[in-house]
Amino acid sequence: MSFLSFFLGEKKKSTASVAKERLQLILAHERSGHNAGTSPDYLPALQKELVAVISKYIPINPEDIKVHLERQDDLEVLEVKIELPDNQREAV
Amino acid sequence: MSFLSFFLGEKKKSTASVAKERLQLILAHERSGHNAGTSPDYLPALQKELVAVISKYIPINPEDIKVHLERQDDLEVLEVKIELPDNQREAV
Repeated sequence: MSFLSFFLGEKKKSTASVAKERLQLILAHERSGHNAGTSPDYLPALQKELVAVISKYIPINPEDIKVHLERQDDLEVLEVKIELPDNQREAV
Repeated sequence: MSFLSFFLGEKKKSTASVAKERLQLILAHERSGHNAGTSPDYLPALQKELVAVISKYIPINPEDIKVHLERQDDLEVLEVKIELPDNQREAV
C-alpha cells in the first residue's frame, strides 16, 4: 500500500463534498529493542519547530493546527493536521 | 485505519528480523479543485528545512536520507525516510 493510496483513501472519507486545502505532517519514529518504551523529550519541541518551518512557506493559522501523538510498542507517530485558509491559495 | 496500524503494518514487512532505528517524515498536501495540478515550488526547499530541523534534535547522516515524492490528482505526498545511526541511541 502506497502512501498516496493511503491518503487518497482517507481523503475520500472526509472530504467527498467539501473541497478544502489541507496539509498533513506525520513524523514516525521507530525505535529498536532496548531503547523502545522510553519517551523521547524532543518530540513536542521538534513538532513546534517543524510547524514553524512550514509556516514560513505557507501561511498557517495556529487555530487550524491539530496535533495527535500515538505510541505503541517501539513506534511513535506524531501527526499534525493543518487546514489552510482559503485566501492562502493565491498567495503561494 | 489509524496511522499507527499503518506504520506498524509496514514495519512488520520490512524489519521483522533487523532491529534498526528509523525516522519517517511524511508531508501530505491536499489541494482543492481549481488549484490542483499546479506544482508548488516550495516543497523541495521545505523538505530540506524540515530535515535540517530534525537533524538539530537527532544526528542524521545525509547518506541515510531517502526522499520520495508522489503526485496524483490534487494530492501530493512527500516522504522522507531516515535511518538513524546505531550510536545515536545513547546520545539522545
